[in-house]
Order: sequence, then structure tokens, then C-alpha cells
Amino acid sequence: MTYRLYYSPAACSLAVHIVLEELGQAFDLQLVTSTWEASYLALNPKGRVPVLMIPGERQPLTELPVILTYLARRHPEAGLLPDDALAEARCHEWLAWLAGWVHGMAFGALWRPERFVSDPQVHAMIQANGKALILDSFLSIEERLAAQDSSPAPGFTLVDPFLLVLYAWGERINLPMAKDYPAWASRTQTTLARPAVARALNREGIHLELAATPHRPA
Amino acid sequence: MTYRLYYSPAACSLAVHIVLEELGQAFDLQLVTSTWEASYLALNPKGRVPVLMIPGERQPLTELPVILTYLARRHPEAGLLPDDALAEARCHEWLAWLAGWVHGMAFGALWRPERFVSDPQVHAMIQANGKALILDSFLSIEERLAAQDSSPAPGFTLVDPFLLVLYAWGERINLPMAKDYPAWASRTQTTLARPAVARALNREGIHLELAATPHRPA
Ligand SMILES: N[C@@H](CCC(=O)N[C@@H](CS)C(=O)NCC(=O)O)C(=O)O
Ligand SMILES: N[C@@H](CCC(=O)N[C@@H](CS)C(=O)NCC(=O)O)C(=O)O
Repeated sequence: MTYRLYYSPAACSLAVHIVLEELGQAFDLQLVTSTWEASYLALNPKGRVPVLMIPGERQPLTELPVILTYLARRHPEAGLLPDDALAEARCHEWLAWLAGWVHGMAFGALWRPERFVSDPQVHAMIQANGKALILDSFLSIEERLAAQDSSPAPGFTLVDPFLLVLYAWGERINLPMAKDYPAWASRTQTTLARPAVARALNREGIHLELAATPHRPA
Repeated sequence: MTYRLYYSPAACSLAVHIVLEELGQAFDLQLVTSTWEASYLALNPKGRVPVLMIPGERQPLTELPVILTYLARRHPEAGLLPDDALAEARCHEWLAWLAGWVHGMAFGALWRPERFVSDPQVHAMIQANGKALILDSFLSIEERLAAQDSSPAPGFTLVDPFLLVLYAWGERINLPMAKDYPAWASRTQTTLARPAVARALNREGIHLELAATPHRPA
């Protein structure tokens, strides 16, 4: 038996995919095309990816930061979390905020306004608010990465795959990522240089722009 | 130096307050009356409670599940998290969902609709959706506590103080908690029997109803 990851391409499940590659453990990928089909809801009543099936365990494990943390602590030799308790807590602090606020609130509002209100007439308003929350939180990510004072640990940790996913989502919504968020782009470049990361991105068919588009003087 | 908790009475910071009492560590409480005052934002730019100041550490620690986990792991003798890695992950799975979805989305929409959309005319719609999400998730909490299959560990863990906070919030919005959620009420009763819990509730001036109001036959 091996780990099994239920994923959708370029969804936040990509962060788990990357971590599984980093661990060098055998795993298989199960593509989820609709999280709201009865058969998937029977597996995960929350109707979301990622879901991790753990060898020997009947119940699926859900919640991105929890899956990442479980894997990192189960395979400590990969060094995906700092040893020091407080440095580890800083990583969890990033993960909790990225998952609950940046992903859940900001991108949730932009991409899933129906979670917030049923009336379709109000969706555009929810989405505009989501977009504003994304811009706010992306700025705060950039500032913290640039300042490095309250940043995640200097090396590669569990925070990096999640930051990579959000960077890719920024490109998907046409934000000028490399230009507006240079510290983040540089961290992303370092992340992309890892063979395990490249394997996961290739397999999900994802390509990222990391150089700012040159600005032609008028 | 001791731990310092920034809290508001009956807010989710109560869960940290309970855990500090459980640990038997010295701590002091700092009342926060407005999370949006400049002086508080300077401490926590996210404008939220709880914030934990850790002896010897300059940067405050934020995010409820992260603070709880940090304290439990720093003081393992209190036994607030299971030893087994998977059983521990189940606790984190509860905490992540309670924080991100039940608190952030459902109660967030009911109590802070302005986070979701600025136009006050739409707030009632957001709040109604929040109320529906609360009812859905409370039902799911009750079912899982009653079934005990994917429940948190049987003993008292970090999940219990958070469940207590949400139970109290249910009463605050006038849900018939003891009547509609008997398994949850019974677990809450067990939690309340702990002297550390009673001390924290007393200090924050909180009283809970645990017996279903007797139903008078017509
Ligand atoms: N709290 C969940 C959220 C996961 C989530 O929202 N995943 C998205 C993909 S990035 C999803 O499954 N969306 C499907 C849908 O909303 O229908 C976690 O942290 O794992
Ligand atoms: N993600 C945060 C959320 C905490 C939170 O929202 N706390 C509420 C009190 S229960 C708060 O500070 N609200 C103040 C406000 O919204 O102005 C955490 O888990 O700590």
C-alpha cells in the first residue's frame, strides 16, 4: 500500500503533490474532476481536494495544512519543517493564514462566490471584494518575504509549495507577478529549481513565468 | 517573563485561555477592546485576537490552532494532544476546519459581513448565508461527536476548548444547543467539569446552559 492523493491539476492539492515527490515515497495520484459528485462526497463530505489516503488507515485525511504537516512529521528525514518548536510554529502560522484567509476567503470569494451568497446578482460584488483581499494579502506576502523577519524559515519548508500554488494562481488571474512581487518571484525561482518540484509541475502541466516582462520605453 | 494572552471575553481567544489554565503555567491576560486600534494593529496587523506573547520572543504568535498547538507541544506533560501521529493529525484536522470554515466562513459571515462585501445593503444576505452554514456545520459536528468514528480523541484535547467556544456562540445566537445537539452538550458538560476550564470561564464571565429546556406537553 502507498499514499494516494486525490487532486485536481493546479489546485491547492499541488502543494501535497510536491511534498510527496520531495519525500521520495511511492504514491499514486487520483484525478478528481468534480468534487461534488456523489462518489467523491462519499469519500470527503466537505467536497474538496486535497484528500490523502494513508496506508493502513480507512478514513481519508483532509485540510491542506494538516496533510502537509502529517507528511513532514511522518518523514522527518526530508527536513520539511524546522526542528525548533517556535520556528516550526512560524511555518504553521503561515500555512494557517494562507489556507484560511488567502485561499479560503480571498480566492474563495473570487472563484466560488456561491459559497458566500446564493443570489447570482451579488456574485460580482463578492468577487470584487475577493480580488481586493487577494491584492492586500499578496502585498503582505511580498513585504514579509522581502523583510525576512517574520518569514518562514530560510530553507525550503512546507510553506514553499503553498506559496508556489498561490504564485501560480496570481498568474492565472493575470497579476503581473514577477514585476509586482519580486521577492516572492525570487523565492519561487528557488523552489522551481528543485527536481521534485519540477516533476510535480510537469505532471500537472503547469508552467510559470518568472521574469518580469521587459518594459519597452515609449 | 511569562506568557501573555491578548484576548476579548468569550471570543475564540477563550480556547487559549483555557489551555493556559490547563498547563498550570504562569500567564497574564491583556484585554483587547478594539482589534482595529492603531496600537493593536502595530502588534498584530491582522487585527484579530488571540495573540500570544512567548517569553523571550519578540514577535507575537497568531492563529488560534497554531497557538494551541504550540502550547500543547511545548508542554507535553499536560497531554493535550495524542501521542500517535495520526491521532494527532485528526485533532489538527478538526481545528483547521473549525477555524477556517465554521469560525472564519460561517460565524465570520454572520458577525462580520463587512469582511465579505462593503455594500451594507447586501449584509443581510451574507448573514443569512452565514447562519445557514452555521446550522450545517453544527449538524455535522453533532453527527461526528455522536458517531465517534472520526471524532477527536476520546479524552480532553485541544479540540475541546474550541468546541466549547463554538457551543457558547451557538447559545449566544439563540440556537437550542442542549436540545438540538445532545452529544455535543454532553461533551461540553465533561469539559466544564474540569477545574481549569471553570476558572477560565469564570474569569471571562461566561455561563452556559447545558440542560435542554423541559418541553411542556400542550
Ligand atoms: N480547507 C480546505 C480547502 C480546500 C479547497 O478549497 N480546495 C479547492 C481546490 S484549490 C476545492 O476543492 N474546490 C472545489 C470546490 O469548491 O468545489 C483545505 O485546506 O484543504
Ligand atoms: N484566523 C484567526 C481568526 C481569529 C478571529 O477572527 N478572532 C476574532 C474574535 S473570535 C476577532 O479578533 N475579531 C475581531 C474583528 O474581526 O474585528 C485565528 O484563527 O486566530
